[in-house]
Amino acid sequence: MIVKKIVEVDAVPVQMEGAKDVSVRVLFGPKDAAPTFALRQFEIAVGGHTPFHEHPFEHEVVVMAGEINLVKEDGKIPITVGEVVLIPANEKHQFQNGSSTETAKMLCIVPVEYQK
Amino acid sequence: MIVKKIVEVDAVPVQMEGAKDVSVRVLFGPKDAAPTFALRQFEIAVGGHTPFHEHPFEHEVVVMAGEINLVKEDGKIPITVGEVVLIPANEKHQFQNGSSTETAKMLCIVPVEYQK
Repeated sequence: MIVKKIVEVDAVPVQMEGAKDVSVRVLFGPKDAAPTFALRQFEIAVGGHTPFHEHPFEHEVVVMAGEINLVKEDGKIPITVGEVVLIPANEKHQFQNGSSTETAKMLCIVPVEYQK
Repeated sequence: MIVKKIVEVDAVPVQMEGAKDVSVRVLFGPKDAAPTFALRQFEIAVGGHTPFHEHPFEHEVVVMAGEINLVKEDGKIPITVGEVVLIPANEKHQFQNGSSTETAKMLCIVPVEYQK
């Protein structure tokens, strides 16, 4: 059994092309011998965003703090604390911080083989 | 892409033997065609608890509200908002509400084949 405080897990800047002012804490992943899925918390600073991209695996997302604009091919949806999102494989998406004052935080769970 | 508000997902009483005053909202599971893992929110009323049990799959848990006593074979650990837990397969565990006033809420993610 492993118990962690989220704030004690290193926040690492996301270096992917198209990402701006985003960091990630890998809460549970391959280094913890997570067998099936990886649990990460992304933190998007004011003005920041993830890449607008797609990939061959799903996301399940839980908004933990702030306001997020979830960008799809046909528009954007504002989401906030108390909302969850399932993004199927191969569907384009982006998360933008939707607030001018507050860092946005979201859990994002993926199959563990896609967490390096 | 599916967006849900957590409070709009049905909270269903957990009927397992050994559970007391616990309900579950299946946020994403087989009915949403979640391919790899199911995302659920458990809510444990004051005085309530999950079964003290084990099973052949892991849990990843995120405390969302309240205070929880995480019971292991050799004792219990208090956990609260901002903490996450990985419980490996076949390790006995129980979640008890640790507060006398507040419902405890936690996300619990499992491989989707174990979500009926």
